[in-house]
Amino acid sequence: MSAERAAALAAQFKAVADPNRLRLISIISASEGAEACVCDLIEPLDLGQPTVSHHLKVLVDAGILRREKRGVWAYFSLVPGALDNLAGVLAEPK
Amino acid sequence: MSAERAAALAAQFKAVADPNRLRLISIISASEGAEACVCDLIEPLDLGQPTVSHHLKVLVDAGILRREKRGVWAYFSLVPGALDNLAGVLAEPK
Repeated sequence: MSAERAAALAAQFKAVADPNRLRLISIISASEGAEACVCDLIEPLDLGQPTVSHHLKVLVDAGILRREKRGVWAYFSLVPGALDNLAGVLAEPK
Repeated sequence: MSAERAAALAAQFKAVADPNRLRLISIISASEGAEACVCDLIEPLDLGQPTVSHHLKVLVDAGILRREKRGVWAYFSLVPGALDNLAGVLAEPK
């Protein structure tokens, strides 16, 4: 693994390596269409909206989630392939 | 995902979320028997032995690698299932 690839992957793993962000990913993955409104992400985490928005922004900036504004709410979905790419890095030899 | 499980997983992802530790995991995974002597891990990373040993200890403490002393050298191998468990958390809905 090249140093450049290791650095890029480490940045994405850092974005994932937080309990609240793991829970956000888990909720969004399990939502219908793998998409969730920010309005549905506040209550399950028991955090304030600014904190939830911060964690979502970290995941968007890392290329793991994408954000789409529709009406008054922002919707978050998985960037296709991003998590699969990270999972592939962790694949154990069979 | 419960808060407790999220915290435990985040701790393991934090251990992985470092370029040098990702490279160590990559080298050990690709080694014969998925095991490598610390003596074979120094040169590819171009770091000093104390730094490599520190990164290996972080991965051992996180339950991702196990360490076995044989003769004068320590050997490191993957804890079976540990990386697969993390990869499973990142599985995208199909």
